[in-house]
Amino acid sequence: MPFSFKLQAEDAATGARAGCFATPHGEVLTPAFMPVGTVGSVKSLSPDDLTAAGCDILLCNTYHLMLRPGVDTVRKMGGMHRFMGWDGAMLTDSGGFQVMSLNELNRVREEGVEFRSHLDGSRHMLSPEEAIRVQDGLGTDIAMSFDHLVRLPAPPADVREAVDRTVRWARRGLEERTRLREDGRGHMALFGINQGGTDAAERARCFSELGALPFDGFALGGLWVGEGRSLGLEMVERDCGEFPREKPRYLMGVGHPVDVIEAIARGVDMMDCVLPTRNARRGTVFIDSGRLVVRNAAYAHDERPLDPECDCATCRKYTRAYLRHLFISGELLGMRLASVHAVHHMMSLVRRARAAVLDGRFSAFRSGFLEKFASRETLAAAAS
Amino acid sequence: MPFSFKLQAEDAATGARAGCFATPHGEVLTPAFMPVGTVGSVKSLSPDDLTAAGCDILLCNTYHLMLRPGVDTVRKMGGMHRFMGWDGAMLTDSGGFQVMSLNELNRVREEGVEFRSHLDGSRHMLSPEEAIRVQDGLGTDIAMSFDHLVRLPAPPADVREAVDRTVRWARRGLEERTRLREDGRGHMALFGINQGGTDAAERARCFSELGALPFDGFALGGLWVGEGRSLGLEMVERDCGEFPREKPRYLMGVGHPVDVIEAIARGVDMMDCVLPTRNARRGTVFIDSGRLVVRNAAYAHDERPLDPECDCATCRKYTRAYLRHLFISGELLGMRLASVHAVHHMMSLVRRARAAVLDGRFSAFRSGFLEKFASRETLAAAAS
Repeated sequence: MPFSFKLQAEDAATGARAGCFATPHGEVLTPAFMPVGTVGSVKSLSPDDLTAAGCDILLCNTYHLMLRPGVDTVRKMGGMHRFMGWDGAMLTDSGGFQVMSLNELNRVREEGVEFRSHLDGSRHMLSPEEAIRVQDGLGTDIAMSFDHLVRLPAPPADVREAVDRTVRWARRGLEERTRLREDGRGHMALFGINQGGTDAAERARCFSELGALPFDGFALGGLWVGEGRSLGLEMVERDCGEFPREKPRYLMGVGHPVDVIEAIARGVDMMDCVLPTRNARRGTVFIDSGRLVVRNAAYAHDERPLDPECDCATCRKYTRAYLRHLFISGELLGMRLASVHAVHHMMSLVRRARAAVLDGRFSAFRSGFLEKFASRETLAAAAS
Repeated sequence: MPFSFKLQAEDAATGARAGCFATPHGEVLTPAFMPVGTVGSVKSLSPDDLTAAGCDILLCNTYHLMLRPGVDTVRKMGGMHRFMGWDGAMLTDSGGFQVMSLNELNRVREEGVEFRSHLDGSRHMLSPEEAIRVQDGLGTDIAMSFDHLVRLPAPPADVREAVDRTVRWARRGLEERTRLREDGRGHMALFGINQGGTDAAERARCFSELGALPFDGFALGGLWVGEGRSLGLEMVERDCGEFPREKPRYLMGVGHPVDVIEAIARGVDMMDCVLPTRNARRGTVFIDSGRLVVRNAAYAHDERPLDPECDCATCRKYTRAYLRHLFISGELLGMRLASVHAVHHMMSLVRRARAAVLDGRFSAFRSGFLEKFASRETLAAAAS
């Protein structure tokens, strides 16, 4: 079954879009936010928790899974879905980001990247072909092309070289999927990743080649790595202006609610980030009216839920006072309850954005959201 | 409403009993195992998880809660049930065990125990009266008498002194509850605690006085602190032989499945222990056929659930292979899924024992259980 993205609505005043695509593991509505289940679990949450939060697509990390438990084990266990008990859609990254960011000792060659495991120092090789084979072995629904990214800031020549290599590697990945399909495998969709860092000309040059390749969707790579929100969003606007209208656009590594809404406003369909759940485990959650630090002494007797406007399993039942107590006491349940809220809140955010696009009121939704998020109005202690 | 325990069946061949008692937070069936929610949560589990596991009574620790968040906060939040979102019954310990075991610097006087907080070194005092007031403030359904325990082995004179003081303190606690009731508070049940360590004569002497006091139930204190199973069970048999038939009997700190069944066989109605859940968080779970170490390499590709005979939420969905991967990877979800099984398994164990007593087949159940537990039959790797 060929991957097909259905564009359901486009906002008249902004770039915002609403759409959907089918996968062997259910339909995914866009804009979509993908929680990150790095090694096969969104930390502290079960697949049932994700489903209850309204999640229909999950991201897992190829780099981590290929090192542990290893693709052979996952294949033996029937693929990632069966192994972890997740019935929804799954996107895997290519491992490219991790082999560059978790490995000081990597060696990048035309063939691929030689790296050492962050777990035990063992040597491994990830190439454009191997990245596709591993993702196929994991049983993903959407695989990502193996790209070459450079740490910014970088000399222009390095950025150019990375762009050229990313395009060559993209072709090799597509060819590998074709070979797998000839073998009756490789059924997953495959997305290309645009590179070029914050150099608009390089991003344009990258996409002039990448855009001609038969990818099922395109990702915006090399952004949200420290360049700042306004420059990042400028690149998002640039890329989305050029990406084909009829294919999904995935902005990698974005998860701050304001960034999510601003990226959607510029035409992004999919995002992922550990930020909401990592923050939550450390006791900070996003709510509609800002960023709430659960340990704050102001909440010691606060009977309100984390977010008075949220109907997640945590906000329906537990007070800020109890959650604060759990975090102050170092209780695991605190991390879990905050994570339940964090995932639900991101799902709710993209669902509300989607509904606004479908209803032709995205601009009003966006300004209302931004105003409320900046208001911090329910962050203060309740009058007692 | 006066506390009343209803004895529903007594086994003909052993001391095993089945009963029930009502609390303001629902009925509790006995034999009962109480998971421990030390500071207001059974680590990694929510109240809904406990309910799903069949749990109808939970233990919380007075010592921990009085130090953090403090009884004033809990009272302000409407009591422990409301604070933590637990609708079932609750028993609190008196804090006596913790002030002795967590505090090297405690000073025991006739008035009570002066101790330093293990959190910040601050000075506190817990007396028989204060322990009752704190437990009442926490809103417990069953409070425990503040007892004096000695670290074993101890000179006979120390054991005698602790017994005498335990009896004097028991009277003072009962008097304090009477005073509270005159103020319209103190509605909780109150259990006395028998002491005397492993000295049968001292335990008999303790109970000759304690048994005459109007407690709602009696606990077996000072056992399972290193004396060994056979000596512990000997004391259990001794105490239960003397405890009144019409009141519940609570063996403190017991949670190994074999000990639980053997204690039930000797007439115990209630138990608590952190063992099953603490073990679970560390990757070891009890199953019907023994003790399973989840990280064992033999389970890397084992598609069976932790316990093929268990119908808990974890065993219904997840394989040993996945749980092993979670533990090897240090994922929080592993601790949670193992804890879900651990609580469910203990609930199932006491429920099965109860059904056996009611059906007049406890001896057969007991020997079947012990034989299977020793068999280790599903611990080995599956044939592949």
